[in-house]
Parts: sequence; structure tokens; C-alpha cells
Amino acid sequence: MDNDINRIQEQIQFCIRGELWENLQPLLDQIHPADIADIIEDAPDDVQNHIFDLLDDETKGDVIAELDDATEADILEELTAEQISDIAEEMAPDDAADMLAELDDKRSQEVLELMEDEDSEEVRELLQYDEDSAGGIMTTDFVALHSTRTAQDALDYIGTLDLDEPIYSAYIIDTADKLIGHVQLWQLIKADNRHKTLGQLAETDLFSARPETDQEEVAQIMSKYDLSSLPVIDADGTLVGRITIDDMVDVIEEEASEDIFKLAGSDDAELEDPSPLASCKVRLPWLLITLGTGFITSMILKAFIHHITAMEVLALSFFVPIVMGMGGNTGIQSSTLIIRGLALGSFNEKKLYRLLFREMAIGMLMGVICGSVIGAWARFVIGGTTTINPAFLAFSVGLALFSAMTFAAIFGAFVPLLLNRFKIDPAVASGPFVSASNDIMALLIYYGVTFLLIGLQTA
Amino acid sequence: MDNDINRIQEQIQFCIRGELWENLQPLLDQIHPADIADIIEDAPDDVQNHIFDLLDDETKGDVIAELDDATEADILEELTAEQISDIAEEMAPDDAADMLAELDDKRSQEVLELMEDEDSEEVRELLQYDEDSAGGIMTTDFVALHSTRTAQDALDYIGTLDLDEPIYSAYIIDTADKLIGHVQLWQLIKADNRHKTLGQLAETDLFSARPETDQEEVAQIMSKYDLSSLPVIDADGTLVGRITIDDMVDVIEEEASEDIFKLAGSDDAELEDPSPLASCKVRLPWLLITLGTGFITSMILKAFIHHITAMEVLALSFFVPIVMGMGGNTGIQSSTLIIRGLALGSFNEKKLYRLLFREMAIGMLMGVICGSVIGAWARFVIGGTTTINPAFLAFSVGLALFSAMTFAAIFGAFVPLLLNRFKIDPAVASGPFVSASNDIMALLIYYGVTFLLIGLQTA
Repeated sequence: MDNDINRIQEQIQFCIRGELWENLQPLLDQIHPADIADIIEDAPDDVQNHIFDLLDDETKGDVIAELDDATEADILEELTAEQISDIAEEMAPDDAADMLAELDDKRSQEVLELMEDEDSEEVRELLQYDEDSAGGIMTTDFVALHSTRTAQDALDYIGTLDLDEPIYSAYIIDTADKLIGHVQLWQLIKADNRHKTLGQLAETDLFSARPETDQEEVAQIMSKYDLSSLPVIDADGTLVGRITIDDMVDVIEEEASEDIFKLAGSDDAELEDPSPLASCKVRLPWLLITLGTGFITSMILKAFIHHITAMEVLALSFFVPIVMGMGGNTGIQSSTLIIRGLALGSFNEKKLYRLLFREMAIGMLMGVICGSVIGAWARFVIGGTTTINPAFLAFSVGLALFSAMTFAAIFGAFVPLLLNRFKIDPAVASGPFVSASNDIMALLIYYGVTFLLIGLQTA
Repeated sequence: MDNDINRIQEQIQFCIRGELWENLQPLLDQIHPADIADIIEDAPDDVQNHIFDLLDDETKGDVIAELDDATEADILEELTAEQISDIAEEMAPDDAADMLAELDDKRSQEVLELMEDEDSEEVRELLQYDEDSAGGIMTTDFVALHSTRTAQDALDYIGTLDLDEPIYSAYIIDTADKLIGHVQLWQLIKADNRHKTLGQLAETDLFSARPETDQEEVAQIMSKYDLSSLPVIDADGTLVGRITIDDMVDVIEEEASEDIFKLAGSDDAELEDPSPLASCKVRLPWLLITLGTGFITSMILKAFIHHITAMEVLALSFFVPIVMGMGGNTGIQSSTLIIRGLALGSFNEKKLYRLLFREMAIGMLMGVICGSVIGAWARFVIGGTTTINPAFLAFSVGLALFSAMTFAAIFGAFVPLLLNRFKIDPAVASGPFVSASNDIMALLIYYGVTFLLIGLQTA
């Protein structure tokens, strides 16, 4: 099978290079919309719409749902409102809403008015929710049945439905249309169950989300309880949609990417937009913060050096990169644990103080070890080249590194916990802020401790 | 519903503190196994087994599947082989295999011999696969039907099965038992399909994995093509198991955590084991590498300072933390993009050179901007305090920063791409290695460029 796909892929690339559109069409029919999306993304800008135009409306919809934002925008720009509305009608309501959210308001209204009333109503409903909320990722395609029906009756009814998306379970509602549970399809099929009512079969330990629930929270619930779908209910308890686990997979990957990129002072938008200029825009702010931090540390250095001799400064400056590097890394390790633990729901608020205490213990323990190592290095390797008493130098540098690492571990844990407390996504601000603060603090601690001790020695 | 759960949780905590085991039992029956697992993990070590013993064998199995590795090991240690085998028989084969993989070989054999033959055979089969492979995460619970059956016939047959795990689709095999496709349950239920044969209904554009396929690759396939389950076939094309998307959710989270932690020089094992000592063990190696790198940079510093005056060294040392910090951050940003892109399958090998070129462009662009800023700073703020010509100092420092950042961007992208080429997980080694190398190179470049230029000036 792999060989077939590779052969088809090669033929497709050949047709694109030669602009052999008639030959390309039958080849595209043989591959998955996700692969067609990849091919369009990789194709030169001027032929992307040529390839897209070869597809039928249904496939167009599937491909658009898979395209990255930049390419999707380029493709949509070349289409008329009429063409977009034809495609939207073939799409699942949640995918159609995602597509329309990429258009400007005027164009999106135009498309909605061209769509059939039934379809456009569902899409309009979905468009009112924030795209990172449960409402933004749910679909309005679901099956809700009254609890008094029998399993056999339900099966017969489901058999007559014209469904746009796969369903794996049916939701069960009471006479007031309130959600009371769900039954999985395979349980309806069981011979023993056929004559039971849905009320008897319904699993009622029901997890649900509100339309405004954040998608990260939805992901935590579905992943923790191994749910294949999650109902979305409004304030009245009325079922308004469902979220399927395959949509959550994208969310989980997106949230993880966001955490990783933010920690490195970048943004997961980089995965979507391939232009170097766009990447610079995303990465530069943090680098400029680092640069600003560097200027502050330079000023600190400048302020301190008036108080000691040039040779002493020289001896101490040996250790500056080490202390700063160690402080920075220790802080990032703490931040990473806390940020990822919070994102996965591994930690709860109750453990907050325990986590801080734990990071302090880790920082102190690692500080003692690394402080001893650097002390020995200062005593035996660097000691001879300066006017400072080697034993004193060793002790000062060791103590400074210990203090800087302990501070960094506590601070690296404290910042994301604090941000989380105030409902700010800890991944967004922690990386740059923790790094910058740790650089400055490490230097202050280092010069503070060494000057104090060297001052004591010479006094 | 949230209030109910909070109230039950409070009562549970009260019973645990008071060791009121009889009162605890009915409370545990009301909550999800994933929540029971959380409660056991958070409970003091000496009562964990007390709580666990209150559960029936089926719930015990569900809870064990949710426990973190450390707690699971503690719990299993207190159980007899007989008790473990009773629990294993109630578990899905893949969960049972995961549990037995945590025991030592002798104990695991003992448990397998105590299990019923039918159950133990399935588990033995699964145990032979690496736990990070498709074989290690698949379940052997699946429904395979011959293509000549009708949909109605298939429904009736599935209705008589006693299934341990939910199924959403049936696999279709030919007369030689080779897999030819799958049909989703909801398609079997459709009234129009009832009298068609499975061969007519089967979707044959079938994705599959081999048992030895890496779980990360499985995750990429299922996520890219939005699959709810993936069949696993052996070399002969015979169906041996299936992987469901809810199991993949754990894998995706695990792989993302691994990437995040490795980048910070740590390990996702930290999320599981709460002891500070265990965390130190995981984090220290990288910090010691950083320390070692620091020693090398110190030696470089020491080698260089014999060639210039102390005041010149002083002037230049102002900028050392900045250049090193900027190089390090630039490199990590590049590495992050490449590592995450490779993990998500956003990049393919063909784009390799384009990616390197892209990162070089980004590094140069950001280097020009940051180099100009630091040059201006050197000229106007630091310039006056040294014997070096301010304009020359500005140019040297700016050029050095530009060079260090360009190198860091290329190197940060190159290392993960190279590791990936040799089938080494780029996340594992990139973070520490890239950081350490960039520190040393940034310093070498910085002193190399500045000394060369200052040498030219004074010559």
C-alpha cells in the first residue's frame, strides 16, 4: 500500500510541475483529503487554486478543513461567495463555521445568506462561540432520543437518518428535553438489550461541558475519563452539541505545541506560516527582552566594579556565565514541570504549597552539589590567578551559585502557579519572564554574595 | 453535578483521615475509577492499599489502568499473585499486559499461569511487543467479519458477543482472513444498507500499522486522517489487533510531555514521581553539563585575557552574558520549531534543506536587528568607560552578536534534523546538546571577532 501511495504522489508532483491538470484530477481522487491539503500547501502559490478547482465540492470542504490557516486564506480569497456557500453546504457544521470564521464579517454574512436556511442556521449558532471554547469545537450533528423508546425502536430510527458525521452513541433526553445520559451504539445492538427502554440502558454518570468551557478543560476531562464524546449543554440543561475525541486530538496537540513554543519564547503559529519574516516577528520580542535584561545586568556589573580592583573583577567575571546559565536552566526546569503538570491536570490547587516547597528542596539539593563542584573548581583551577584568597573565592562562588539556584527553582515554580491562580495561561508569560528575572537575580545574588564575603575578608 | 462531586470528595477525604473504611466503600462506588486513582495517589502511603482493598476486582482493574507508575508498583507489591490474576482477568487485555509489564518476569509468569488460558494467551501475545510500539498499545478485542455477510446478519452476530471494550466499527476480512476494510457500526444500522453485503459497504482506503510501528507514528497517522481506530496487521496481512483513538490521546500527551521536558533538560517521569530526590536525579545531569560547559568557557576566557589589557577585558566582559544568553535563546527557538514540527509530522525529510536555509535567514535577520541595538548600546552607554575606540567597540560587539545568533539558529535547527535522520528521537538529545554547544560557540565567536577587530585597530 505504501508503494502505491508513493507512486501516486510522484505522479501527482509530475503533473503539478508540468501543469497537466486533466491528468492530475483522477490521481487526486485516489488519495485522502488530508494528503491533498499537504500537496496544495507545498505547491507554488500560483497553482494552488488550479489544484483546488479540480476537486468536487465535498472534497473541497474536506480539504479546507485540513489546510493550514495561511493557505486556507489564500484559497478562499480566490473564490466567490457563491462558490464558498456551495462548499460550506457539504461540510459538517463545525468545519463550516471554522471556515467562515476565517473570512471577514461582510463576506461571511454574504456566504451565510447564500446557504440553505437549515444549514446556515446551524453554522450561525456555532459562529457565536469563541473558537477556543467547547462551543467553538462542538458539532451540532447529534442524535437525541426520548428515554421511553426501546433500543430496537432507536436503531430503526437512527437507520433512517441522513448523517453528515459518524456517530458512536445516542444521547437520551427526558420528556422536558433535558439530557439524562447516553447509550453507545454497540449497546443498542446487543441482543439482550433490544427490548429494554433507553432509560434503562442509559449511562447516567454523565460528564458534560458548557458552550463557554475552555477547550483545554474539555481535553482534560475527555482524556482523564477516556471519553469518546462529550455532550455540550446550555444553562438550562438542554443539549446543544457534542465534541468528539478525534476533534480533541487536534486540540491536545495544539495546546501542547503552544506550551512548548511559549516556553522557548516563540509561538505555535510558526508551524503554520513558513515565511522567515513571520518567524522573526514571533521570536524577536523575547530576544529583545533578553537583550534588555542583558543591559540591566551590564549596568549592575558597572555599578559593582567601582568597589573592587580590576583583577578581582576579572576573577569574579570568570564565573558570571556559569552562574547565570545555571540559574536560568534551574528556573526553566521548575517552570516546565509546573506548566505541563497544570496543563495535563496532574496538579490541583491544593497541592500548591507542597509544589513550591518541593521545588525549593530540589533547588537547594542541586545547589549544594553544583555549588560544591564550582567551589572546588574555583579553589584549585582559578584560585592561583587572582589576588583573592583561593579558599574564600571558592566559598563565595559556591555559596553564590547555591543561592542563585535555590532562588531560581522557587521563582520558576512560583510564577506559573501565580499566573494560574489568576486564570492567566501559565505557559504564555512564564518562559520569558522567568528567564529574564532569573538572569538579573542570579547576577545580583552572585555579586551580592561574593562582594559581601570578599569585603568581609579584606575588612 | 459539580457540587455533588465536591461533596463526595470531601466526605471521602474525611473518611480517609479518620480511617473509616466501612463508610468509605459506598462513597467510592459513586465516583469514576480515574478519580479513585487520584485519591489513592494523594493518600498517605500506609493507607493506599486499605483504600484499594475496598474495591471489587473489576474496579481494581480500572483503577490500576489509571494509576501513575510509582503508585501502581507500590499497590501491586502488597498483592499476591492470585489477587493480581483475579484483577487481570477483569481487565481489557491491553491494560492487563501493561500491568504485568510493571512486574518482574518471575512474578508476571506466576500471574499468567494462574489466569484462565483464554485470557492469559491474549495477554502473553501483547507482552511480547515493546510498550511504545503499536503492538504495545493495541487491544486484541476486535470484531472481524467475512465480506460475504449482510449488514443485518453482522448486526445480529455482534449483538450476541460479550465485549470487554466498546467497539465503533467492524473489520472486514476476505476468505483468506486478510483484512480488506472496515465498516462503522452506524453504517450497518442504516436502513438502506441492511441487505447489502459487508464487502459492498467496506471502506477500503484502509490505514493500518504493523505491531512494531512506533506509537508516535501511529499517533501521527490517526491524528492526520482523523481515524477513530487503526487496525494492526502482521507481515502476512492478518489482523492482530486495533488501536483506539482514546488510547492515542494518552500517547499524544505523553509524547508532547516528553518533548517539553527533554527541551528543558528534564524528563516527563517527573510528572509521575513526586520525590524531590528523584527529580534531582533527572535534572542534575543537564545542569552538570551546563556546569562543564561553563568551565570550558572559563578556560577560553582565561586563554584570551593574556593578549589584551585588563581594562579591555573588563569592557568586553560586559557583553559576555548578553551574547551567551542571546545565542542560547536563538538556538532553542530553532530547535523547538524543528523538534515539534517533526513530532507532529508537519515537516518531511524533503524540506530539510529548506528548513535549514530558513532558520539561517531568521538568524541573520534577527542578528542584524539585535546586533545593531547592542552596537548602539556599546557605543553610547559603555563606550566612554574603556580605552577601546567606542565606534570600533560598537562594531565589534554588534558583529559578534550577529555571528553568534546566525550560528545558533543554524546549529539549533541542524542538530535535531541530523538526529532525526539517524532515527534518534530529536527531543532527547537536542536541548542540552544545543544549549551547551551554543554557549561555547557564542563565546568563541564573540572573543574571536572582538579580538580580531581590536587587534586590527591597535596594529
